Amino acid sequence: MERTLVKDTLTKIGEKVKLAGWVNTKRDHGKITFIDLRDRTGIIQVVGMGSDYSSLGIEYVIEIEGEVKKRPENLINPSISTGKVEIKAERVNLLSSAHELPIDMGKEDLDVSLPTLLDYRPLTLRNSKINAIFKVQEVVIDAFRRALKEREFFEFQAPVFIPEVVEGGAEVFKVPYFNHEVYLSQSPQLYKQILVGAYERVFSVNKTLRAEPSVTTRHLTEVTTLDAEFGFIDSYFDVKEMAEYTIKFMLKEVEKKCGEILEKFGATTPKFTDDIPMIKLREAQEIIFRRTGRDNRKEPDLEPEDEKEICRWSLEEKGSDLIFISHYPTKKRPFYTFQDPEDPEYTMSFDLLGRGTEWMTGGRRINDYDTLLKMAKERNVDPKKLELYLQAFRFGMPPEGGFSFGSERITMHILGLGNIREASLFPRDMERVDIRLSTLQKPQEKKK
Amino acid sequence: MERTLVKDTLTKIGEKVKLAGWVNTKRDHGKITFIDLRDRTGIIQVVGMGSDYSSLGIEYVIEIEGEVKKRPENLINPSISTGKVEIKAERVNLLSSAHELPIDMGKEDLDVSLPTLLDYRPLTLRNSKINAIFKVQEVVIDAFRRALKEREFFEFQAPVFIPEVVEGGAEVFKVPYFNHEVYLSQSPQLYKQILVGAYERVFSVNKTLRAEPSVTTRHLTEVTTLDAEFGFIDSYFDVKEMAEYTIKFMLKEVEKKCGEILEKFGATTPKFTDDIPMIKLREAQEIIFRRTGRDNRKEPDLEPEDEKEICRWSLEEKGSDLIFISHYPTKKRPFYTFQDPEDPEYTMSFDLLGRGTEWMTGGRRINDYDTLLKMAKERNVDPKKLELYLQAFRFGMPPEGGFSFGSERITMHILGLGNIREASLFPRDMERVDIRLSTLQKPQEKKK
Repeated sequence: MERTLVKDTLTKIGEKVKLAGWVNTKRDHGKITFIDLRDRTGIIQVVGMGSDYSSLGIEYVIEIEGEVKKRPENLINPSISTGKVEIKAERVNLLSSAHELPIDMGKEDLDVSLPTLLDYRPLTLRNSKINAIFKVQEVVIDAFRRALKEREFFEFQAPVFIPEVVEGGAEVFKVPYFNHEVYLSQSPQLYKQILVGAYERVFSVNKTLRAEPSVTTRHLTEVTTLDAEFGFIDSYFDVKEMAEYTIKFMLKEVEKKCGEILEKFGATTPKFTDDIPMIKLREAQEIIFRRTGRDNRKEPDLEPEDEKEICRWSLEEKGSDLIFISHYPTKKRPFYTFQDPEDPEYTMSFDLLGRGTEWMTGGRRINDYDTLLKMAKERNVDPKKLELYLQAFRFGMPPEGGFSFGSERITMHILGLGNIREASLFPRDMERVDIRLSTLQKPQEKKK
Repeated sequence: MERTLVKDTLTKIGEKVKLAGWVNTKRDHGKITFIDLRDRTGIIQVVGMGSDYSSLGIEYVIEIEGEVKKRPENLINPSISTGKVEIKAERVNLLSSAHELPIDMGKEDLDVSLPTLLDYRPLTLRNSKINAIFKVQEVVIDAFRRALKEREFFEFQAPVFIPEVVEGGAEVFKVPYFNHEVYLSQSPQLYKQILVGAYERVFSVNKTLRAEPSVTTRHLTEVTTLDAEFGFIDSYFDVKEMAEYTIKFMLKEVEKKCGEILEKFGATTPKFTDDIPMIKLREAQEIIFRRTGRDNRKEPDLEPEDEKEICRWSLEEKGSDLIFISHYPTKKRPFYTFQDPEDPEYTMSFDLLGRGTEWMTGGRRINDYDTLLKMAKERNVDPKKLELYLQAFRFGMPPEGGFSFGSERITMHILGLGNIREASLFPRDMERVDIRLSTLQKPQEKKK
């Protein structure tokens, strides 16, 4: 007999079916055993008679043959989508047993600390609510790709190994590489710009690695970044327009495909307007000063408190949870950022803020070779380390720009999660790479 | 005026348009200059009068305004898709100039060595034929995703950092990680199996890193791997069926979307039959012995010569360029490979061969916790290093299996490229990470 998925039982009332899945919960009532059977599409109640059923344990993997029965009105379970039916089991086939569980998996909201949640990741990912976080992430990433493919962007695979560190370097991972040393890429920035010269419009979904030296709720050492870059723009407004189109596309897809999940988390996607507002940093600081008396009008960036305040303003005055802030100071942005010709101390770059935190960053880049070289030198970036990158500009590059999201951050912001680790399947930070690193031998101990 | 793409000029004869792109080639005829203008959609001839046009250089980025004119019959250029039209330029706007080119970019087949091709990657990627390789790769990767999404697989992002090396370890990159050491993942195998316990059907497109200590035409240190894994299978035939469905889906998409590119490379996709043949390794060796007298009937694997011979046999006798070989010896496959219960010296694993080389590998895995633990110990794999992985099995795992492709290899095989470096945008090997590593200081030199 072919396997029937749990979600398809509703259309098979009165039919014999074979289901397969995990024992999610079990209740023994003497001879009768009630099992909630879980597969990738949902949960259904199975009623079995005898020891074959009562001896099953939680998370056992089983096949069940039986009949789909309508439940009487008064026994309908409104909390599961198959609540109107149940399976009268006739045969059970054990596919895999399970050891006793270290944590109680019976509740929708697991009652465990974050470290425990991660120590038992293979198990806790089976919880429907935790499982669903990554379905939202899948939709976010997929929507990013589809939005840009519709605008004729080319998808490329960005490198992990890079030969040189261009700026700073404190937070970059260094890798012994045969007789040399290379580094792990913190961003596909230089590569996506190079590829504008070959494909005009490019994007990538790729891992970026950063040696974050502190444990915060917002930082991981490994994230999946969504990057886009494109040429033949007239101004940074074209970049803002494309970024806006992309985030709207992503949010609409999440609303369309993850309605039930959002409800489960008590989450809503941010409100946005037809034309998401964009103001300059100095304007934002002026508004904040007016509203709060907090005078940060000479600061090069927004403080977390400022981000929250300007988002409140945006929602109250513009009806938008999302707001672009442009014109960050030149000295605070990377060397390739395009300066405003009318005021070169500020750049034609922007961040997208949503509900008080950063969602995205982007802007126009310098496309003129001589200007780029000059800016690199002013910022003490060694042009020798930029050889491949500079080629792309030396041999003709159109005016261009782009933007970048972190898929974990977007997922975290949409679902209102408190810690970015919850939005990563296998989060890595300075204390954990699957296991707690403190349980590993240190390199120097090994040598002894 | 809105920009018109080159490919759209054919429907705008007699109209004024604005085009933008690169000067691909230029021919001066006194006052008249003929320019082949290139954008992401193709090449078109532009005819301009005067010094604004004659002073343009190769790879300059320009905007052109002018009229789309039908060419006289005798001047039609059949070698480009816009060969029936040309642009009579009225205005040119220089967006970016270019330095003199280090190589002749005027020909479809670039006359450069592989090292030069890579030394000038930002430039050589602008060549239409080289550019097209990665459009094929994009279609391969995209088709992989779409095939599996149609079968309800969940896409996940596989980790790059891993805490331990499970088997061997000679070819794994080690990374100093704060006060510890971690490794770079060579395969998402263990993670995709873990996730079968949570999502049943999963796939990923992810970077895998391997310290290949030799420079061959088939190995890179960084590749983009396509991985799938799924549960509730009845036997390894279910895995073969899914792998077959996926590769067919991919090949059909390449045929449909990359017809012109295949023609350019003189390539065809492999012939395959409704049911791609699958034979056991020992049967294959028997056939090879019968056909060639070469007696490798006791070898644990196929030699390159054997792979070629069995593919010839498959094409001649079965009409298929593709053939699955199953039942590799247990001792030659990883510890988690499922043994044939009828003959435990052989596994229910397989490779897919195509035109004489390996295209894919896959098979059924052990899903029983005790068996897995026993096999790990027999192979001297330390269960402590497998803690997270083993959890997934300790808490109930259905019968499962999966398969894995390398996107660069598939691209190389489809287009008949001679070297895998040609199928990687930015190939990394022991001698090169963008730049030739020999031009970098060695770590010990730095310390002096």
